Formats: sequence, C-alpha cells, structure tokens
Amino acid sequence: MALTQVSSNKCAGGFQKVFEHDSVELKCKMKFAVFLPPKAETHKCPVLYWISGLTCTEQNFITKAGSQLAAADNGIMVVAPDTSPRGCGVEGEDDGWDLGTGAGFYVDATQEPWKSNYRMYSYVTRELPKLINDNFPADPERMSISGHSMGGHGALICALKNPGKYKAYDATVLASGYAGPPLDILLDQGRDDQFLSASQLLPDNLIAVCSEKKIPVVFRLQPGYDHSYFFIYSFINDHIKHHAKYLNA
Amino acid sequence: MALTQVSSNKCAGGFQKVFEHDSVELKCKMKFAVFLPPKAETHKCPVLYWISGLTCTEQNFITKAGSQLAAADNGIMVVAPDTSPRGCGVEGEDDGWDLGTGAGFYVDATQEPWKSNYRMYSYVTRELPKLINDNFPADPERMSISGHSMGGHGALICALKNPGKYKAYDATVLASGYAGPPLDILLDQGRDDQFLSASQLLPDNLIAVCSEKKIPVVFRLQPGYDHSYFFIYSFINDHIKHHAKYLNA
Repeated sequence: MALTQVSSNKCAGGFQKVFEHDSVELKCKMKFAVFLPPKAETHKCPVLYWISGLTCTEQNFITKAGSQLAAADNGIMVVAPDTSPRGCGVEGEDDGWDLGTGAGFYVDATQEPWKSNYRMYSYVTRELPKLINDNFPADPERMSISGHSMGGHGALICALKNPGKYKAYDATVLASGYAGPPLDILLDQGRDDQFLSASQLLPDNLIAVCSEKKIPVVFRLQPGYDHSYFFIYSFINDHIKHHAKYLNA
Repeated sequence: MALTQVSSNKCAGGFQKVFEHDSVELKCKMKFAVFLPPKAETHKCPVLYWISGLTCTEQNFITKAGSQLAAADNGIMVVAPDTSPRGCGVEGEDDGWDLGTGAGFYVDATQEPWKSNYRMYSYVTRELPKLINDNFPADPERMSISGHSMGGHGALICALKNPGKYKAYDATVLASGYAGPPLDILLDQGRDDQFLSASQLLPDNLIAVCSEKKIPVVFRLQPGYDHSYFFIYSFINDHIKHHAKYLNA
C-alpha cells in the first residue's frame, strides 16, 4: 500500500511525520501522524496508537498534546490517525459535529448510508496497524492504545472487544463481559469537564463494572480541569509512562 | 484599566487564561494570554514575556509550545500577547502576511498610515507590563523576555534597546552599541530552517557583533530542525530554565 509523506518535522530528537494513503476500509484518502523516536533509527520500537476526540484530525494531538518528549525518552512510536473518513459524500455526514465527518466513533457502522465508509474500528484495529508494521520500524508484538473523549472511549472498546464477538460498542457493556488477558487502565477525568456536568460522560458506570469484574482501573478525577487539550497536555506524560511500562517490559 | 477574561483552563496545576482589554497604545481591543503557575496562588511570581512570530495570535504559543509544565515547575508566570493591533482599518494592513495584521514586528511605527496604531514596542515593553503588574501577582522587579522568529528578534531588541535612545530596530545594530547591564542570551536556530537557507535569517551577523562586544550568547544550531512549533516545543524547556535561573535568583 503506497504511502505519501505529507510533512516531516524534526521534533524531540525524532521526527513527527504525517502520511496520506488510500484506505481500503474507509474507501477514501486518509491521513495519519506518526512520531518516530530517535531509537527508531536503529531499533524496532513499540507503538502507541492515540485516537482523538470529536471534530479532531490527525493534527490536534501532535500539535497540542506535548507527547513527543516523553515518547522520545521512552523509545515509543506514536501513531495518531484522523477520526473519520472524509469527503465520501455520505448523505448527512456534514450536518452535525457529533456524527459523520470528524465523528467516526471508532465503530463499524452497520446501517445505510454509513456502513460502506464508516468503518473506523476496522481501520484502527487492523488496516492501520498492518500499514504501520509494514512501513515503519515497528515491533508488531508490542502495541497499545489510548485516546481522549470519543477516542478515550474508542481506546477502551478496542482494548475490550474481541473482534467479531461482541455486538455492543459501549465500554461499560464490553467490560461487563470481558474475559481476555489482564488489563491495566489509566483513566483521567477533569472534575470540571463541561460534558461531565452535563451527564454526557458516565465514568462511574464503567468503574463500577470494572470493579465488579476485577479489571484494574486507576481513575483520577482531576479537580479544576476541563475537557480541553490543556487537560490532555497536563497529564500526557503520565499516560506515555503508563504505556511504556508494558511496551518496554 | 478593565480586563475581560476570555477563557480560563486549568493546566499543569495552574491556570492558562486569556484576557481582552482596550489598548491605549494600539487604540484597539487586544488579547493576551497569561499562565499562572500554582505558586501564584500564594506568592508574587516573576514574569516571562513571550512574543510570537509572524501570523501568530496569543493562541499559538499557549496551545502548541508545551511551556506550562516547566513554567509551573519553576514558579514563573508566562505572558503571551497578540502580535499586532487588529481591526484598526489601517490601509493595506491585510494585504500581506509579513506586514500589518499579525506582523507588528514589535516596533513603534514612525510613518503614516501605521504610526497611530502600530506601536507594539511600547505595548510590549510598557503598557502590557503595567497591566500585568497591576492585575496579577507579578513581581515587577523580575521580568524577562523571549520569543520566536519575528518575536525572537523582538525579544532581542526589547532587551538591547534603551527606550528612546536608539533609532534602529535591528538586533545586530543594537548589540553593536549596547552598553547596559550584562546580558545572557540563549539562541536556538534550526539548521534546516527554510528561512535560514533562504538567507532571511542572519544569526552569524548577530553572533559576530556579540562576540566583539563580549555579550554572552549561547548559540545552538540544531541539526534537522525547521522553523515550526515542533522546533519550539523541542527546546522550550531549556529556555524556561534559562530564564528561571535569573528570575528566581
């Protein structure tokens, strides 16, 4: 599969790059960002997949989150894809900010008019990792996933879901039936997050189920923090280190 | 002088805020960003003024540079103003990206039609510091200045120029006549900066003059780095620490 390099910037001793390719799953051109730590010049590196929130592209995380210094220190590649197919001409895809363009929710749609393009689950869990493993010095045996907002939930469902086995795409429901290898989830939530106070986020439900199923979750309710990239930036180092603990084990 | 808070986000244990006010020097509404480290809750803090490059607003540095963690660690307030007056209706101010809106060059214009609004030098060196000292827990005796690109040059001229004494606004010329207290300049330059290879940046001239005048400059030519915020992000921690060494002395 041909990759076209869109940009390359030296950053934190490594390179922050963006590539474009024709996606088989999404049937459109897709962009993704990849940070190559200095270690990637001479070694295969583990890969952390970061999946972003509603309205984001591959740019938000790489320009605003301040992840590259910690990724360089820990010798981790970070791959950040776009959040949905784009420009497919699906009816209604640009009508709202929370469905369609910029809002793929990391699921495989099952209904018309969405189902032929909106296959972000398959893209993120299969097509993209294959592309990364085939084209970069990635160790295919060491990958992990994290994200924010829609992407935080997406990361949880990717980790919890055995492909093809479950129908529901709700992390709380998936956790209640999880029977795979041990997980270790680090979850930061701003206590002053506008979506939390609007009851659009329900971390308590997930924690209750994980507690019942004995899935380890470190849940940190961070006083004063909201939903923004200022929040992500403040805690991204902890998350990189959390993943590095397993990726470099 | 009334300040209107535009935004406030908890970040790195402190707060990243943006304010708007009516500027006397620029005769328009101006925005500036201020990062308040946790220490500012109980102590007066030194202030680092960061002035940005061409086309930037007060947003670029606070969203992309990753400065807040180091500023919090060192107990330093960081003030990042917009780069020019806006919406003044000066003829030609929106005709190019390198003169007018977003391109104030931190000088006081002397000719029509610019001279009544384009007074960024007076704004950055006098009006803004007074506003900060009057409204925030800032120690007026401890301030320093840094920046990138147009703002890197701006920071140098602000540091080198005794107000009212010199006519030229060129850091190399100013350095050749500098006779103030000792300076300690840290200068990072990407070796693969597109503006360097286009001969639009002339760091060698400045270094030659500083060397002759015995003004200490640590000049680091960083291989592979370009002109972008990925470059700023990669070295901002060193600059925060450089300023902290004097601000917290």
